[in-house]
Amino acid sequence: MKKIIKSGTIVTASDTYVADILIENEKITAIGSNLASDGAEVIDASGCFVLPGGIDPHTHLEMPFGGTVTKDDFETGTIGAAFGGTTTVIDFCLTEKGKPLKTAIETWHNKSRDKAVIDYGFHLMISEINENVLQEIPSVIEKEGITSFKVFMAYKNVFQADDETLFRTLVTAKEHGALVMVHAENGDVIDYLTKKALEEGKTEPIYHALTRPPEIEGEATGRAAQLAGLANSQLYVVHVSCEDAVERIIEARNKGFDIWGETCPQYLVLDQSYLEKPNFEGAKYVWSPPLREKRHQDVLWNALKNGQLQTIGSDQCSFDFKGQKDLGKDDFTKIPNGGPIIEDRMSILFSEGVTKGRISLNQFVDITSTRSAKLFGLYPQKGTIAVGADADIVIFDPAAERTISASTHHMAVDYNAFEGMKVAGEPVSVLSRGQFVIKDKSFVGAPGKGQYLKRAKYGSFHPTGEKEGMSV
Amino acid sequence: MKKIIKSGTIVTASDTYVADILIENEKITAIGSNLASDGAEVIDASGCFVLPGGIDPHTHLEMPFGGTVTKDDFETGTIGAAFGGTTTVIDFCLTEKGKPLKTAIETWHNKSRDKAVIDYGFHLMISEINENVLQEIPSVIEKEGITSFKVFMAYKNVFQADDETLFRTLVTAKEHGALVMVHAENGDVIDYLTKKALEEGKTEPIYHALTRPPEIEGEATGRAAQLAGLANSQLYVVHVSCEDAVERIIEARNKGFDIWGETCPQYLVLDQSYLEKPNFEGAKYVWSPPLREKRHQDVLWNALKNGQLQTIGSDQCSFDFKGQKDLGKDDFTKIPNGGPIIEDRMSILFSEGVTKGRISLNQFVDITSTRSAKLFGLYPQKGTIAVGADADIVIFDPAAERTISASTHHMAVDYNAFEGMKVAGEPVSVLSRGQFVIKDKSFVGAPGKGQYLKRAKYGSFHPTGEKEGMSV
Amino acid sequence: MKKIIKSGTIVTASDTYVADILIENEKITAIGSNLASDGAEVIDASGCFVLPGGIDPHTHLEMPFGGTVTKDDFETGTIGAAFGGTTTVIDFCLTEKGKPLKTAIETWHNKSRDKAVIDYGFHLMISEINENVLQEIPSVIEKEGITSFKVFMAYKNVFQADDETLFRTLVTAKEHGALVMVHAENGDVIDYLTKKALEEGKTEPIYHALTRPPEIEGEATGRAAQLAGLANSQLYVVHVSCEDAVERIIEARNKGFDIWGETCPQYLVLDQSYLEKPNFEGAKYVWSPPLREKRHQDVLWNALKNGQLQTIGSDQCSFDFKGQKDLGKDDFTKIPNGGPIIEDRMSILFSEGVTKGRISLNQFVDITSTRSAKLFGLYPQKGTIAVGADADIVIFDPAAERTISASTHHMAVDYNAFEGMKVAGEPVSVLSRGQFVIKDKSFVGAPGKGQYLKRAKYGSFHPTGEKEGMSV
Amino acid sequence: MKKIIKSGTIVTASDTYVADILIENEKITAIGSNLASDGAEVIDASGCFVLPGGIDPHTHLEMPFGGTVTKDDFETGTIGAAFGGTTTVIDFCLTEKGKPLKTAIETWHNKSRDKAVIDYGFHLMISEINENVLQEIPSVIEKEGITSFKVFMAYKNVFQADDETLFRTLVTAKEHGALVMVHAENGDVIDYLTKKALEEGKTEPIYHALTRPPEIEGEATGRAAQLAGLANSQLYVVHVSCEDAVERIIEARNKGFDIWGETCPQYLVLDQSYLEKPNFEGAKYVWSPPLREKRHQDVLWNALKNGQLQTIGSDQCSFDFKGQKDLGKDDFTKIPNGGPIIEDRMSILFSEGVTKGRISLNQFVDITSTRSAKLFGLYPQKGTIAVGADADIVIFDPAAERTISASTHHMAVDYNAFEGMKVAGEPVSVLSRGQFVIKDKSFVGAPGKGQYLKRAKYGSFHPTGEKEGMSV
Repeated sequence: MKKIIKSGTIVTASDTYVADILIENEKITAIGSNLASDGAEVIDASGCFVLPGGIDPHTHLEMPFGGTVTKDDFETGTIGAAFGGTTTVIDFCLTEKGKPLKTAIETWHNKSRDKAVIDYGFHLMISEINENVLQEIPSVIEKEGITSFKVFMAYKNVFQADDETLFRTLVTAKEHGALVMVHAENGDVIDYLTKKALEEGKTEPIYHALTRPPEIEGEATGRAAQLAGLANSQLYVVHVSCEDAVERIIEARNKGFDIWGETCPQYLVLDQSYLEKPNFEGAKYVWSPPLREKRHQDVLWNALKNGQLQTIGSDQCSFDFKGQKDLGKDDFTKIPNGGPIIEDRMSILFSEGVTKGRISLNQFVDITSTRSAKLFGLYPQKGTIAVGADADIVIFDPAAERTISASTHHMAVDYNAFEGMKVAGEPVSVLSRGQFVIKDKSFVGAPGKGQYLKRAKYGSFHPTGEKEGMSV
Repeated sequence: MKKIIKSGTIVTASDTYVADILIENEKITAIGSNLASDGAEVIDASGCFVLPGGIDPHTHLEMPFGGTVTKDDFETGTIGAAFGGTTTVIDFCLTEKGKPLKTAIETWHNKSRDKAVIDYGFHLMISEINENVLQEIPSVIEKEGITSFKVFMAYKNVFQADDETLFRTLVTAKEHGALVMVHAENGDVIDYLTKKALEEGKTEPIYHALTRPPEIEGEATGRAAQLAGLANSQLYVVHVSCEDAVERIIEARNKGFDIWGETCPQYLVLDQSYLEKPNFEGAKYVWSPPLREKRHQDVLWNALKNGQLQTIGSDQCSFDFKGQKDLGKDDFTKIPNGGPIIEDRMSILFSEGVTKGRISLNQFVDITSTRSAKLFGLYPQKGTIAVGADADIVIFDPAAERTISASTHHMAVDYNAFEGMKVAGEPVSVLSRGQFVIKDKSFVGAPGKGQYLKRAKYGSFHPTGEKEGMSV
Repeated sequence: MKKIIKSGTIVTASDTYVADILIENEKITAIGSNLASDGAEVIDASGCFVLPGGIDPHTHLEMPFGGTVTKDDFETGTIGAAFGGTTTVIDFCLTEKGKPLKTAIETWHNKSRDKAVIDYGFHLMISEINENVLQEIPSVIEKEGITSFKVFMAYKNVFQADDETLFRTLVTAKEHGALVMVHAENGDVIDYLTKKALEEGKTEPIYHALTRPPEIEGEATGRAAQLAGLANSQLYVVHVSCEDAVERIIEARNKGFDIWGETCPQYLVLDQSYLEKPNFEGAKYVWSPPLREKRHQDVLWNALKNGQLQTIGSDQCSFDFKGQKDLGKDDFTKIPNGGPIIEDRMSILFSEGVTKGRISLNQFVDITSTRSAKLFGLYPQKGTIAVGADADIVIFDPAAERTISASTHHMAVDYNAFEGMKVAGEPVSVLSRGQFVIKDKSFVGAPGKGQYLKRAKYGSFHPTGEKEGMSV
Repeated sequence: MKKIIKSGTIVTASDTYVADILIENEKITAIGSNLASDGAEVIDASGCFVLPGGIDPHTHLEMPFGGTVTKDDFETGTIGAAFGGTTTVIDFCLTEKGKPLKTAIETWHNKSRDKAVIDYGFHLMISEINENVLQEIPSVIEKEGITSFKVFMAYKNVFQADDETLFRTLVTAKEHGALVMVHAENGDVIDYLTKKALEEGKTEPIYHALTRPPEIEGEATGRAAQLAGLANSQLYVVHVSCEDAVERIIEARNKGFDIWGETCPQYLVLDQSYLEKPNFEGAKYVWSPPLREKRHQDVLWNALKNGQLQTIGSDQCSFDFKGQKDLGKDDFTKIPNGGPIIEDRMSILFSEGVTKGRISLNQFVDITSTRSAKLFGLYPQKGTIAVGADADIVIFDPAAERTISASTHHMAVDYNAFEGMKVAGEPVSVLSRGQFVIKDKSFVGAPGKGQYLKRAKYGSFHPTGEKEGMSV
């Protein structure tokens, strides 16, 4: 059955115009003025923006961490995402040293298969590079369609890889067409500073921030960028939180390196002082990298505006305040890192970014959707409103106002880090491949309807928009 | 009458997809898969890119300079432009100190009215700021729709304005919604160096380059950017030719200043050694700023790729080699500055940029068309392929190969600076507001069919894509 | 008659050691452990530092400015200087357009000849470059021993030279062996901002600072440095006040340019908030460039420590608060610029710099004396404690404490900008060519005893310490 | 017995003047014009420079490396040093993981005690930080007078320490008053690149350079500097070879970090092309970091001139070409790293630096002697010509010319990396604590006469020249 979205203001990463959209068989088939409705279901979007569904390139659903498991799984997590206008997530599949990569991937398929309400893909963590791993990588890329690998420079003795592993991953990724993602903090220094803080009896949440200063994020970011340049490879720095890191990314891009940067809503609107909230409430704001001093926010916004950072991820990694975050009551190193952002990622960027004039509406679309589609091999199926694309569409009311709250959010956790924040704009309806997931602000989808996405190689459709080899 | 462009690969500043385009009443009214042709003229674009018509933001047609007048006027100039895929030019209207601005504008209307074959607008030169000028500016913006002003930091005792004039222009432009364009070279130093060179008997064309070194373009660019930042205004640096200037633009943008930069095809593919060609042939390559050493080209390409430079202008300013350039036979300072590029601007960027992988196809569209439309108040009427936009469309064959030559070009001058250069890709047909100007590589338009464009204020549609105030 | 300074801690720009100094015929003739006193006058310096007399490279004594004349002339000014440990001043000789340089120099000889109590030289202001000026310059250098020229980039329509004049001065200085000094602020922008402020009724002293923001000092500094580099000449930037300027100097030095920078005590310890003092007291703190926000101080100190700035001048330019500063009571642009610092220049640097660990004791000597001697052609006659040098010596008690006050200072003005500031360290006795000028904190010198110093060419003794051509 | 050095031109880090020097009991006791000779041995230095004896802060004498031992021991090595004008060396004492530091130190005392002909001290390598090491460090500093520690960021699985070890060493050094020295190359990346090169059959010496590119020296230098800044500690980067590293040092110093840099003669005058010499001759030029492309030399010279690098070490680490270097005939990774430079370190800097005008004569003294004395706790006993200092003096004939050659050098190795290079200037005589070691270009010293130097803590005499706490 056909659908027509009428009279909305369609927004892409470069254009803004009023037109109707015709949807047939999960796809957009026409865009025009006053398209004939003949038998189609008509959705009135007048007064609304019609946006490509958001792509969240950074989630951790049902992920084990520090002896517990993130609260949101692929069901509650993707329902929250959908409410926020996100129609695709790419989740991090964790591997274990010594075990085949395919085992980890199978585990992740099992977590997601029957639960996701929107489409999803996987990034794969690389913790070691050896002959077995090297042998598996081609099939991971070709058969599983997993074309992005994550390396950790922090979490010593847990996830942390050494520089040789990072460098070999970069070399291998270049060879096979994958994008390397990096968590850039110097884990060695953090390890020393945290041990020292605990020795000195410093156990409160604020020490989480004070033992991971921006200098060591800047250091690790510069190191990763330098290694990527030397390997002539491609690098994507996740959750950039501070000026120190932004400077290194700019420097690398000015040298012509193929470096991309992601930031997250929390770094754009929250700051380090939140970790000092009394009654252990600071634990709600424990992310890695940590929240920074307020002055870093301007730098991040300007980097988004100038295209020096290109995407925004949620780094969704939710834990209940009661029962999970409080594992670290007497020791900040035991507080599970992360928070629930998957639902409000787009709202916050729209409200703080677009309506406050920091970025344009088209940049908003690029940052929340199009750029991730291009970088992670989902474009042109996902990431835009164009003829031939999947009908992943958000009807967004810019005039709506909403207050973020745990009492109204749809994620499974017991708090919201942005509790009480007023945001302008709200998704009214959300379609995934032409089907409503959210309709008039109600969930109408179903677990298991989301499909696993095999992604194309890095550069097969060039991240900046071009088909490789220029064939038409 | 309707037209349908069938089966082409439509390219915008962010998207690439195959679809048909329906044109009615000068506008694009629908884009879809297999649009019904019912009575429309069908244009087959299969195997071709379908691009928004180019916008050349920097031309000097029928402009007096150094005792002569540029060879191409609004007729031959715009015919050349159309052959190259450009459907809009914005020409520089020169003013004279002490005379009303409207006199200059009237002169420019008279030059263009009956000649242009494509649409056009004017930038206005500001050579002095006084009470008369300040009084005229609002009506220039509101009534004439001229929303960009040009200030020269070079050409001492001719066009050169002092820093106070530049600063006041920036302040005034901010107040009234115009964009300040600057020719950034230190004219004082050039004046000294050229006089000294002539005293020393150095008269050949190469001394044109040696007396305008990149350092003084960098200096002036940095100065203008600093003044723009201080005035909290907006600045567009024309014809950026060298690393020194790019560095200053990046620095200013990193500070959050509203600074934009344009480069030209000649700086991307030609270099300073061309000025040393024997038999006075070097004179063909006399631009200001001059061609630079080859190493600067990589910096310019990388700046385009990273969005640190945003547009490409032709700086079309053509003089015959015989009879005009040779005015400087015995004195390089008498060689009229400039060359004929309006026709090959887009071809060169496509061939050297896209097919060589330096920029993406979408960036090509942004750089040659969309960004200028947004910066200069023409968007969304011009600059994209979207429902509602003017049907200014280029059907571009990426597989065609062509050799640039004065013997085949359509400009009125007797040489081509890119003579013999092979380029990939060529416009097959070009439509202006739905009418063919070029059809199957032949000119089918007519002088006077081009319309004068009153342009919107800077930021009324934000250069990065957003409507001011976010109203839908 | 001979003198022996016994048991002091001798400090040079590189060394610190305890020894005795023998003085004969105005010169230092021996340094040793336990030198025999046979008939010499013995001066006990135990517990004291024995320093080379300070060189103040930047004074304006009896200088006309804004319809009045600086309060301190060569008598009171040099007495103040001597009390502070300074034994040489280099004063700025102002020229007038259209008049021979030698007229100006003669005027300055007349002001100083019978008044100075310590040795002195002149810098020469260059306000225009024409054939007459070019013809006079060789004799100014060779016969008058004036080997440094000052160019103003500010004070539009008064002192301000255009870029061509600055550039020609740099070229000429290189040719003849002189050092170009520059007052680096963009006078055009200041002119506009001050006129605008007055139009808006902003007349208080703070607007002096707000209409000359650091950005335009940075801009002008960068411009001058760029021009100096291009001219392959040498440049000395006077009174650097802010980070913006320091950054440009570092950048130029990193490129290998021959660029030097001076700061002043006021920029190191006072800040912009002083201009907001009530009852017009802010006028006491009106310098050009103006005092800056406090954060700039750290940058200046670090630049001194790292050798990116090399000297400290007083920019002595004193006006009474009553009767002179109050010319600007209703209009900040009429406040005479400058203040009385000649006396406390060294104390402040010692107290705030050395005792607070920001610079070393040897750097203190280099900054206040040795470096200026080398840059301005006075070394090795002046600027150090070494066998063969003039016995210009300060016996300095680091344990003394003193409060700066107009009630105790020896300059002729009615206020002191550092009133109430406690400083560690004080000169006990000061010798000029072996004769006491200050003895046990009392003045024992006489007007006219100071000699005019013909200075060597720039680089004749290389500023970094080397004799040109390496002959022994 | 007394000695008088007559009529030489004495040069210190800041001064140059003609005078006589009186030596009594190993010390300089007086400097003066025409000192009475009464019974002293008179040494005529007319026409010569009289310099403080050089301090070589970076030597590896009798050091095991890669299965062999450096050819020069404390006897031949210090004899070579003395011929070149060096009167103090500081050698690196290697430690082994798991063994007490004192064992290593004792080994080094045994190597040097009866052999050195000039004075010497030790730096101590830190390969691990654990409770035992931490417990030993205070006595190493207090009793052994070893106040500088070396950490390797390269030589994976051999010397390489991880970032936590480096960071803890920095923290510990700050606490106890030591200076941390770092070999800054990313050993992980080198490890990968060398293995890969060998796999690809690339075995020639040039691959030594190609597998250790400047990017990874820059990376490691920046990382170390960042860690030092974060630890608020002090860092000395040894053998800086390239622009990438210099940039990071400048950046860190501009932030106010306490960072120092050393380069070596080989990086100033040789370049990467030497590694391509035929017949395995390239092996003579295998250093780590490797020789770089020629363009880096200008950057290093400019950094020395501007004080961004402060010292020059030889990194003496000599191996015979026959029998040692040829261990790597079929595998560049087996070529022992290093070369014989201890003898020509000062000559090369004088000839290429001073006589070619790149640095001043005083800077030469600072770089080769004074600065190392101050940084490594030897000042004011060593490092200058001043009353009270050890009479470590070089009488240097700047007019002499000499050709460097293995056939005339005094080191024990069978080749010289600078073979055939003509240098201006040569030491005529060299005194160590008042005794001739070299007299009229002949060796007159004796093994065992050199004394072990217990060095003061870092900052006890501040590296920039000041006594801590300012007591006189």
